[in-house]
Amino acid sequence: MQISELGEFALIDRLTKDVQLHNASTVKGIGDDCAIVDTTQSAGRALLTTDLLLEGIHFDLVYTPMQHLGYKAAMVNISDVYAMGGTPRQMLVSVAVDRRITVEALDDFYAGLRLACERHHVDIVGGDTSSTLTGMVISITVMGDAPTDEVVCRSGAKDTDLVCVSGNLGAAYLGLQLLEREKAIYFDQLRQQPQGTQLPFEPDFAGKEYLLERILKPEARRDVIENLKKTGIHPTSMIDISDGLSSELLHICKASGCGCRIFEERIPIDYQTASTAEEFNMNVYTCALNGGEDYELLFTVPLADHQRIAEIEDVKVIGHITRQDLGTLLVTRDGGEFELKAQGWQHNS
Amino acid sequence: MQISELGEFALIDRLTKDVQLHNASTVKGIGDDCAIVDTTQSAGRALLTTDLLLEGIHFDLVYTPMQHLGYKAAMVNISDVYAMGGTPRQMLVSVAVDRRITVEALDDFYAGLRLACERHHVDIVGGDTSSTLTGMVISITVMGDAPTDEVVCRSGAKDTDLVCVSGNLGAAYLGLQLLEREKAIYFDQLRQQPQGTQLPFEPDFAGKEYLLERILKPEARRDVIENLKKTGIHPTSMIDISDGLSSELLHICKASGCGCRIFEERIPIDYQTASTAEEFNMNVYTCALNGGEDYELLFTVPLADHQRIAEIEDVKVIGHITRQDLGTLLVTRDGGEFELKAQGWQHNS
Repeated sequence: MQISELGEFALIDRLTKDVQLHNASTVKGIGDDCAIVDTTQSAGRALLTTDLLLEGIHFDLVYTPMQHLGYKAAMVNISDVYAMGGTPRQMLVSVAVDRRITVEALDDFYAGLRLACERHHVDIVGGDTSSTLTGMVISITVMGDAPTDEVVCRSGAKDTDLVCVSGNLGAAYLGLQLLEREKAIYFDQLRQQPQGTQLPFEPDFAGKEYLLERILKPEARRDVIENLKKTGIHPTSMIDISDGLSSELLHICKASGCGCRIFEERIPIDYQTASTAEEFNMNVYTCALNGGEDYELLFTVPLADHQRIAEIEDVKVIGHITRQDLGTLLVTRDGGEFELKAQGWQHNS
Repeated sequence: MQISELGEFALIDRLTKDVQLHNASTVKGIGDDCAIVDTTQSAGRALLTTDLLLEGIHFDLVYTPMQHLGYKAAMVNISDVYAMGGTPRQMLVSVAVDRRITVEALDDFYAGLRLACERHHVDIVGGDTSSTLTGMVISITVMGDAPTDEVVCRSGAKDTDLVCVSGNLGAAYLGLQLLEREKAIYFDQLRQQPQGTQLPFEPDFAGKEYLLERILKPEARRDVIENLKKTGIHPTSMIDISDGLSSELLHICKASGCGCRIFEERIPIDYQTASTAEEFNMNVYTCALNGGEDYELLFTVPLADHQRIAEIEDVKVIGHITRQDLGTLLVTRDGGEFELKAQGWQHNS
């Protein structure tokens, strides 16, 4: 069904009718000039984050299922709240689509959004819908809260702190390379057909499922935050890895006025990541350092927490914080030392 | 200067270096995964609103100066917070631009944003920047606060309440018609020139300045909210007029489960609006009812406040709330009665 058949108000009603509210602090959701949040229920600090996702820059609808897109759009913002030590609570969702996008496709997008929100107990409380001339636009804002003394900024890392990372890195970047390669093959095949031929995009990704999941359906690491709290560890600084380990670690070092020394061999890499990097003739550590979209947590803890951090599942110590004048260094397997560079995440553009 | 020469991080630094923080509740602005707001400073309720503005749909860069665009983008969100009886406090600004937009143009856009924020004591605390393939994208979120018992929803209007409106209506719509007419003339002239000729867009709008200001640089009505508070009037329902009087009044009636009866002759119209409507051979009341973007406040007050509301500058009573079964009616000058229709604001698309 075309969106124009439905009209804006009916569309909003359709997309939001199944939205459920989980948080006691949500006084009023969709349907007024503003959403209303009870701040007397808040633990002391509200946390606000927003992300803009644009078709052709941040995502490609050729290989991104709408439901995954909704899920990921929610997740990247939820991840930012966890990265401050907070609990995500409310979400505003703005979305603009052109005529290619059907009502059913938007249903799928919202199903993905709702699934992410249900898993993380976040309430969709408002937003905006619009048409665009070209390309889908998604803007999501999440509000969370945290007790005043539990908020973790980028700026608290101190000399001798341990540098820790959750999960493993580089997988999302290699998942993207796979998708881009298959897309190129698909368009090559399409060009060889008579014009107007419909050809399904059905590449075989057997054995690479994990990499695809990492790029298409990342998961914010609430489990890590919960385990840190349970173990009584309070990170001195934290950030989520959206732009690659190197860039994020430099953010922490700059904000904290310190240096760092991390060890290549300690950077956690999944088996599929390593084998696919080889297939692409890429250095897997470069993928981990400069690739992006892993949405793992990078954080520092006092040296005294060394024992306790070792007990936390799926967290690895990859190095330590140093004095600023010692630089921001990567130590390679053969003992070479290199300055980390903030190459960051190069989007498709 | 091209944005690509500067890079994303340097661009953010440049755009946000002059941002000042006005609110005690703003603990941390730009520069971390989330902005941090002290909710113990809040008056009980946080208010959240967001708007998406897209080039070609919501604005046209042929006749919209960047500084005005920034000012308006901020203002439409600030207006939503006032429309709930709240005070705007923090703002997140996401903006994406393509290669046509220079760094200097973005400087102007941010200058407009900052001016709007300074006038309304709002802190820019975060956001996102990106490139687009085609067309500028703006997404703004504002958080405000209000004492719990001062929040005004759309749903509180009651039978016999007075329907009030601030300022005057229809001016922004006619301003837009003027700009669109001059743009058409300009492109006609351009077509008659040898290809590649540069022709400045300098239409003469003498005597129409007010209409242009209304469409290009609207002002959120904080003064009205303050005067209502001073006078001790607590509106039973309120909304800001972004989509035309008719559509907004129907929102209030639907949310409140009531009807209304408003009088055409009481709808406030400016002299320039009336004369320009005549020039365009349009019914000026149709412009007021179905045009949009006036950003005036539409609200209801108990009948008992009749005397006090008359004393508030720039506010007019245009009718009253009725029982739902009596319908939502417009009474014309000749005594005819018509059902209000939610035609809403038809954007350029």
